[in-house]
Amino acid sequence: MKAIEAYQTRILEAIREIELPEAPAELYEPFRYIMELGGKRMRPLFTLMGCELFGTDAYQAMPQAMAVEIFHNFSLVHDDIMDQAPLRRNKPTVHKKWNSDIALLSGDAMLVYAYKYLMRCDTDLLPRLLEVFNQTAIEVCEGQQYDMNFEHREDVTLEEYTEMIWRKTAALVAGALSLGAIVGRASDADAQRLRDFGLNLGIAFQLQDDLLDVFGDPGKFGKRVGGDIVANKKTWLMIRTLEVAKGEDRAELDRWLANSEQPEEKVAAVTTLYEKLNISGMAREKMEHHYTLSMQALQDIEVPDERKVALRALADLLMQRDH
Amino acid sequence: MKAIEAYQTRILEAIREIELPEAPAELYEPFRYIMELGGKRMRPLFTLMGCELFGTDAYQAMPQAMAVEIFHNFSLVHDDIMDQAPLRRNKPTVHKKWNSDIALLSGDAMLVYAYKYLMRCDTDLLPRLLEVFNQTAIEVCEGQQYDMNFEHREDVTLEEYTEMIWRKTAALVAGALSLGAIVGRASDADAQRLRDFGLNLGIAFQLQDDLLDVFGDPGKFGKRVGGDIVANKKTWLMIRTLEVAKGEDRAELDRWLANSEQPEEKVAAVTTLYEKLNISGMAREKMEHHYTLSMQALQDIEVPDERKVALRALADLLMQRDH
Repeated sequence: MKAIEAYQTRILEAIREIELPEAPAELYEPFRYIMELGGKRMRPLFTLMGCELFGTDAYQAMPQAMAVEIFHNFSLVHDDIMDQAPLRRNKPTVHKKWNSDIALLSGDAMLVYAYKYLMRCDTDLLPRLLEVFNQTAIEVCEGQQYDMNFEHREDVTLEEYTEMIWRKTAALVAGALSLGAIVGRASDADAQRLRDFGLNLGIAFQLQDDLLDVFGDPGKFGKRVGGDIVANKKTWLMIRTLEVAKGEDRAELDRWLANSEQPEEKVAAVTTLYEKLNISGMAREKMEHHYTLSMQALQDIEVPDERKVALRALADLLMQRDH
Repeated sequence: MKAIEAYQTRILEAIREIELPEAPAELYEPFRYIMELGGKRMRPLFTLMGCELFGTDAYQAMPQAMAVEIFHNFSLVHDDIMDQAPLRRNKPTVHKKWNSDIALLSGDAMLVYAYKYLMRCDTDLLPRLLEVFNQTAIEVCEGQQYDMNFEHREDVTLEEYTEMIWRKTAALVAGALSLGAIVGRASDADAQRLRDFGLNLGIAFQLQDDLLDVFGDPGKFGKRVGGDIVANKKTWLMIRTLEVAKGEDRAELDRWLANSEQPEEKVAAVTTLYEKLNISGMAREKMEHHYTLSMQALQDIEVPDERKVALRALADLLMQRDH
């Protein structure tokens, strides 16, 4: 994993080297603040690795990796306004540290800066890069809108949930990889395979995230276990349970959904229900299914196998697998 | 002026033909709503005319004209959130008709769509188009931030006000023209002259707007006369008055600035002060100065004079001049 850390270091350097004007401070200080808040920088790593996979120096794709990371942080700033989230990585969100107007406008400026970085490439690559980036950006916006809509709906189907997740999470992983593939001058067929790798990995990652909220090690995971349950969040687990729970199980679930007074008992009871109805088993199976599909897509890419080692390691890092 | 109306009709058609997905409705209905709310479509007209000036068919630049109009409307949607404006063209603003989250997110999608239109061109033009568009977009964001900052400051100088205005208003007029010039394959020198035409025209337009708020014909202007005075808005007129008013004049101005109980008397008194101190005369002089500079820049562009007729007519339309 030493290789990945070296790339992360270079990404951090590139982030610190982003040239921003000093004024107006209200526009550029939040930009720098959110960019330097931390994280594993998975998305720009995918861009660099996606490029290197095709025999091109990874750092050729650094501007596009920055475009992806700036876009990701733009979406965090705006999502945090909509979700009224007070904290991000245990630090105040931009709209809390400054205010919503500043978060809105500095987010807008970040989106423009993402394009400023995206375009730093050979001119002949620009149309494909823009095509992929625009499509990805739209999908992420759509995903966020669906996610907000689902909060007010009780009848979200698993199919709708999956549609939402591939837009909100998987699309950006796939987009990050695709940009790397374009800079690496991959064939259309290989670029499509790398995109499939990213989409399936992204969905597996989200299912993992849903599972870790319930069954994760709190010390390692860094969040309170059962947060999604307490918030009645419509995760894959909850939607599936609403589909399959009958009779007394369903009645018990409905009672807990209406109960916001006993969070600890609620987490314990719903978790027990997930296990009794084998919801967690089904989620794990689905997660493994998408993970396998992603590995298969990577396998099919027509480059020497030794070049795929880094992307497999990165997939494992994303999935928090220790092998 | 028949020619301009024909172009406006084609722009309206192009706006109606913007292809948007049906779902999620919360993302695309506000997009269509704000785009079809009306207006003279000055900015896309400038793009078309800027292209035609160099002997290229104006409609070659229609995608870039759409990019400009979508960007402009994106900025209106987000500005209206920040300004908490209830109405736009006498219709509810997006955040009032839907809500702030929807206005925020559909605005984001609009910004991405602006880039989708911008990129519809010969590949060799893309770097210059992106360069100009990104720079313009950033300047507009900076202008809005400065404008918000000025609301909380009492010591804004005329120089700062002019800096703000060229970003918030003039930059987009200049940017719209520059995109047209690029599609029209203008020389760098002529593109710069057209940009200067737009910047000076934009500043003249803003000064005109400040003047019309006070001295305009309410029936023709369509806004309440003196709205800026009632709101204590820091226009060129107000900032200049704060600079030059001394003794009893300054004391009177300060009294009216602190008075929000008598709007009609306030408008009358401040207007009288503007005339007594010749603030309105100075503003008109400055407006004429920038208008002359813009006409000079247009004059210097090295194309046959008959091709400049349309842009002169458009400048007069913007400045509401009836000659």
